[in-house]
Order: sequence, then C-alpha cells, then structure tokens
Amino acid sequence: MTTMNEGPATRALAGLGLVLPPPPVPKGVYKPVVIVERMVLVSGHGPLLPDGRLIKGRVGRDLDEQAGKEAARQVGLAILATLVAGLGSLDRIGRVVKVLGMVNATPDFTRHPAVINGCSELFAAVWGTDRGIGVRSAVGMACLPDDIAVEIEAAFELA
Amino acid sequence: MTTMNEGPATRALAGLGLVLPPPPVPKGVYKPVVIVERMVLVSGHGPLLPDGRLIKGRVGRDLDEQAGKEAARQVGLAILATLVAGLGSLDRIGRVVKVLGMVNATPDFTRHPAVINGCSELFAAVWGTDRGIGVRSAVGMACLPDDIAVEIEAAFELA
Amino acid sequence: MTTMNEGPATRALAGLGLVLPPPPVPKGVYKPVVIVERMVLVSGHGPLLPDGRLIKGRVGRDLDEQAGKEAARQVGLAILATLVAGLGSLDRIGRVVKVLGMVNATPDFTRHPAVINGCSELFAAVWGTDRGIGVRSAVGMACLPDDIAVEIEAAFELA
Repeated sequence: MTTMNEGPATRALAGLGLVLPPPPVPKGVYKPVVIVERMVLVSGHGPLLPDGRLIKGRVGRDLDEQAGKEAARQVGLAILATLVAGLGSLDRIGRVVKVLGMVNATPDFTRHPAVINGCSELFAAVWGTDRGIGVRSAVGMACLPDDIAVEIEAAFELA
Repeated sequence: MTTMNEGPATRALAGLGLVLPPPPVPKGVYKPVVIVERMVLVSGHGPLLPDGRLIKGRVGRDLDEQAGKEAARQVGLAILATLVAGLGSLDRIGRVVKVLGMVNATPDFTRHPAVINGCSELFAAVWGTDRGIGVRSAVGMACLPDDIAVEIEAAFELA
Repeated sequence: MTTMNEGPATRALAGLGLVLPPPPVPKGVYKPVVIVERMVLVSGHGPLLPDGRLIKGRVGRDLDEQAGKEAARQVGLAILATLVAGLGSLDRIGRVVKVLGMVNATPDFTRHPAVINGCSELFAAVWGTDRGIGVRSAVGMACLPDDIAVEIEAAFELA
C-alpha cells in the first residue's frame, strides 16, 4: 500500500532497510527544524540510536574511523527523523544545500571527511547523487554535548 | 515617552533591566552585520561587557557552567547591541532563524547546550518563545579569539 | 586582450600578481560550490598551493601568526579558484556575505582574527572594501582534515 507521502526519497530510505530513531527532542532552547522561505534548516544533531541512546566518545581514541563513520550515518538518520517529523515526508526536500560535520576528535585526527561521509552517503542514497549532495565542511571539535562522537547541522531546499 | 522604534522587542528588553554593551567594533576585516534579502546575519560575537571588557577563560576550568551561561547571555546582549546599531531597532527583527554557539571549553566539557541557553533564553525573552527561538548548534572549540569564553554567530529574518 | 569574463574583480586579482591553485577536487561526498537562489555557497577549503600541496600544521606551534595568515590567504585563493571553475568568472559575485574561518590552533592561541584576515584582505582586494567584506567568525579547531592549518567556508551573493 502506498501513501500520499511516499515519493522517491521515502522509497529510497525504505529500500536501505535502515530504521530511523525517534525524532530528537531538543536538549536546550532551540527548535529541531526551521523553514525560512524555501530553505529548511536543522539544528546540530547527534548520533541518536533507535533505542534513544547516543553514540559517545572521541574519534581516534574511543572510536576508530569506521565507527566514527557509522556514528555520522546515525546522525544523518536522526536528521531524517527530524525532517519527517517536521515536514511530513522526506520528499518535501528538493535537495541538500549544506552540511557542517563536526567530529569529536583527538588532536592528531585527520580523516574528518571519511567520517562525515557516513552522513553524506546516506543523503546521497536518499535524494540521489546530484540533489542529495551539497557543500560541506568537516572539522574537529575540542568537545561536544554529552560527549557525542559527531554533531551535524544541515540546510536543505524545499522541493 | 515612546519613540517610533519602540515595539514589543524593545519593550521586552527594557523590562529585563539589562544594560546593552556598546556595539562591538570589528577586530578584523569583517562587518558586524549584513542584510541579504530578508536575512540578517551577524558576525561571531564575544561576551562584551558594558565597560568594554570581555569575559575570558575556558569553561570547565576558569568558568563553571553557570558562569559560562552568563557569558553566553552577555554575548547575546552584544548581538542585540549590534542589531540596534545596524537596524535601528530590535523590532525590525521578525524572528531568530539560527544560532551557532561556540564554547571555549575543556576537552571533557559536555554541557554546551546549558551554556548557550544563556543567549537563547535572552532572545526568547526579547522576541517570544516562538519567534525568538530558531535552530541551533552548541559545540566546544579548541580556543577562541582573545581567549573569550563564548563566541556566537546568528541569523535572523526581518519583520 | 580582454575577454567577456573580465570585469573589475578579475582585473583586481590579475593586478595582485597572485597565482590561483587548481580548483580543489572534493575529498569526500560534497560539491565544491552550490548556487541556491541568489546565494553562492562554497565548501570548507584548505590552503591549496599551485603545485597541489597543502599548507599543514598547527598555528601557534608549527606556524606563527604570519605564516597562519599566509595560509588563510592561500585558502582564499583556493576559494577563488573554485568560484572561477564553478561560475566562469569572479565578476559573477556581487558581494561577500559570510566567512567562517577555522584555524588549526594550539589551545593557547588567541589571534584567530589576524590569521583569517589573510583571506578577508584578499577578498577585499578583489571585490572592494564594501562588497568584498561580509560577516565573519574566526575560531580555533581541535584538528582539521589532513592537518591543514586553516579551513574556510564562505557564502557570496550573485551580482
């Protein structure tokens, strides 16, 4: 059975067999998502798991590159959960505009792009390799809230 | 006596009994505020006090969480001073769109959202709990200019 | 001989006698530049040299303030190379809107604005001291990809 919300992005996510976490509840004075004209902005998200736990620790010490990349994919899934909750469907997004990927990393860590690809590859799988990929910065932070491994904020354009 | 610039946001700020610092003077090659179409962007601001001094130090070592939150509120006041200087009135702002809160924090600090709430609660008091709250990221930096405790940049939409 | 692409910004860059590096090739899943309505967003760029090498190291330890500033100028040149490759000409840019300057810095470093001025002064020389200067944040990161000394992302408005 199909629903009115079911377009290519929704079907692509279903095809990946991934489970969205519950949409994150703000832990401070902010909104998860804001729509301003044709732009959709989402707050910094962490690697929220379906059971409500967060992937914590420092990449380069507690998590290796692959575990960091999986944490970034989980951040991406949390962002998708926020978009579904806020917009009703992933198909209301026309394209990814911008990703800021922030890694909780050891001072000698240098593989931030490979880590943040965990989120970017998810978005590319959902919206395609043109519309699913935007500009990006991937950088290393001194520390992150709740010691989460990765925090990502993003901007999208409405379809 | 009321003035033409006095709307709800101006009155709300007056009701808080807080003193704005002088609008910050850029310490580099940038503008304090830029208007682009209907968006108002402000540069990264520090915790500037009315006497011109800055709140300095690292949260988690030199400042505890509460002192960090007060520093973030002071950053918010500096941003308000920039908006008044650049736009003429806080009432020209229709809503808060985005806040990026950067905390000068020890590597083990994990309470960035509580710190940045110092700014976000101020904005919510000025513009209300719907229009005064936008998306946000709150993260930990290795270091900040002049060793300031908090730096925040923000985006608003014109009324 | 003049070309159709040669306007004031192109001529200003030529007058500086600086050599653009080749436009950077993405090292992850992102685009170097995205145009959304009238805004031009560029990904985080590093200090790419004309021979393809990157300026690496930590400012405050491996690079002093002046070397950091030169690295930031080199990041600015890499951004210009991306704009030329993506838009055809620097003269398609109407103004600089925003710069986020991220310095790979020691924990005690405090002169981020002076470092990032290396990029901002370049943009001001290319587009002029009004249109070439926007809002900015300059901050210190725990680490950056490939241990680059500076990473900068930026937003411009089309002419």
